[in-house]
Amino acid sequence: LDRQIQSWIDLLCSGDARALARAISTVENRGPGWVALLKALFPHTGRARVIGITGPPGAGKSTLVDRLAKLYRKMKNPSPSRQARGFDGAPDDDRYRVGIIAVDPTSPYTGGAILGDRIRMQDHFADPGIYIRSMATRGSLGGLARTTADVTTVLDAAGRDLILIETVGVGQDEIDIVRLADITVVILVPGMGDDVQMIKAGIMEIADIFVINKSDRDGAERVEREIRALQMLAARHDGWTPPIVKTVASEGRGVTELAAAVAAYDSYLEKEGRALKKRVENWQERLVEMLRDVMLEKARAHFGDGSMARLATEIAEHKLDPYTVVEEIAARVAK
Amino acid sequence: LDRQIQSWIDLLCSGDARALARAISTVENRGPGWVALLKALFPHTGRARVIGITGPPGAGKSTLVDRLAKLYRKMKNPSPSRQARGFDGAPDDDRYRVGIIAVDPTSPYTGGAILGDRIRMQDHFADPGIYIRSMATRGSLGGLARTTADVTTVLDAAGRDLILIETVGVGQDEIDIVRLADITVVILVPGMGDDVQMIKAGIMEIADIFVINKSDRDGAERVEREIRALQMLAARHDGWTPPIVKTVASEGRGVTELAAAVAAYDSYLEKEGRALKKRVENWQERLVEMLRDVMLEKARAHFGDGSMARLATEIAEHKLDPYTVVEEIAARVAK
Repeated sequence: LDRQIQSWIDLLCSGDARALARAISTVENRGPGWVALLKALFPHTGRARVIGITGPPGAGKSTLVDRLAKLYRKMKNPSPSRQARGFDGAPDDDRYRVGIIAVDPTSPYTGGAILGDRIRMQDHFADPGIYIRSMATRGSLGGLARTTADVTTVLDAAGRDLILIETVGVGQDEIDIVRLADITVVILVPGMGDDVQMIKAGIMEIADIFVINKSDRDGAERVEREIRALQMLAARHDGWTPPIVKTVASEGRGVTELAAAVAAYDSYLEKEGRALKKRVENWQERLVEMLRDVMLEKARAHFGDGSMARLATEIAEHKLDPYTVVEEIAARVAK
Repeated sequence: LDRQIQSWIDLLCSGDARALARAISTVENRGPGWVALLKALFPHTGRARVIGITGPPGAGKSTLVDRLAKLYRKMKNPSPSRQARGFDGAPDDDRYRVGIIAVDPTSPYTGGAILGDRIRMQDHFADPGIYIRSMATRGSLGGLARTTADVTTVLDAAGRDLILIETVGVGQDEIDIVRLADITVVILVPGMGDDVQMIKAGIMEIADIFVINKSDRDGAERVEREIRALQMLAARHDGWTPPIVKTVASEGRGVTELAAAVAAYDSYLEKEGRALKKRVENWQERLVEMLRDVMLEKARAHFGDGSMARLATEIAEHKLDPYTVVEEIAARVAK
């Protein structure tokens, strides 16, 4: 391994925030050496617990995530990672060290997440134990779920033992992202009407814990009853009944209860020996995604974009049929 | 080509609704012979105009799409396709024949789209000139955008000269879907607040036409001003300024104006010679997606799921690093 990369990784693993930011950018943008970097970081990973938090726009996800992060910063981590050094010269501590990935699917072109990112960063500025990173949705190449997983790897290697991933819970992309988490928290709010009803039907199976945020509003009881009713209709295969936690994130209410629910699910996974099983399933999905990307790169390298453009033109003019074209390219690349 | 497939395709191209439904299911589920079917259908395609319609949950997409479909059923098609036969024994007509693909991303597991599908089908039951198909979001394999594009191919071959694709406009998947359309209509509604503000920033570049639905509500003027302001900030590269059409879909108001806006954009594309250019770009993206899938299948066939499971286990146990594993598989498949 390159000595320069090695010293970069040493810095990153020691908790240096600038080395971390640079590593995340490299991975997110597929910059030079991104695969070599991830390879080198992988042996330093596997200690972080990843919590996916999803819910509709306006559910108060950021507020809840920020509150949860601050709470974990006050809690002693029973199993701190080996490289329990301080961050940026701050005194070493035995509390949870938190990384937040805020996935913003609403800004695929403009990268509009940046402003909100900065505002939230300021809020946590005094504590290097909370690192926050916003990711705008990229083009379809690379894939948001894949990139989020890779950024999680970087944060894990950097000694963040708790990683919170927040996404807007609509669309396959977001579901793919939260499925990569160890624990998935689904946030609902009262008074969202029939659309939430639909969304709930779709996310019943991915929720390990339900949160009803803004639960001081009218209709909180109704949302709770609806979740219970859906749970009666479709029990989970693993026997876990997702608890329902009521919060008012803006006032910090219910956040301790949420952390307790996370700990309870965690114990359940360990006791039932399901933690590893879930990780194996996740890796199986990630492997397929990674393989798909690498194979595509091979095919593109074999052909070049110019020849792809020529083929696309002939297909658009109906001189060629795309299904045969693709089969022929694949056969030539892989034989 | 298999004689059985040929007679199936003959039926489908003649407008037989059952042959069409069977073909769509085969393509959607990647059933036996799906690639052969698409290959055989491709020469019969290229005549349909594809309109993507997207907007947040609750914007009234289905209502608007249904109204638009009914309007086109009353309009004479200036360039009907060659096989202008009747549908299901109905008398031949020279009006637009409509296919609707309703992509419902809220039901990835439960397939909850079916009920709404049936209710809408009933509404159009009397007219075989409108064919509607709901698609629930599938697992990440196959890909929703890819499957939607393939279903569009089937509808095109079946003589549907106008294909309306409706999706919820949040998430990369949905954006990928509407980017495959010839014309993209973005629906907004008054009173959705800041989240819509964010969504708008993301979809400014994909909208060819804006619709403000439920425009009899307070705040319609404000939404219009906001769109205009965003258009001032970020003009399109092609010089087209997307018009803003106000509708009240539940009462059918503004639907004729929307159809006129579609026709105006269509003329613009033709006049500027951009129609083919756009299709070439779309095919370039579709080719990449298709290649990615085919290459992945090659790799999977080479390895088998059992060996993938074993590798995933060793990665989850940190005995292997996934980045090296994937490179090695790819190198062995493609050499």
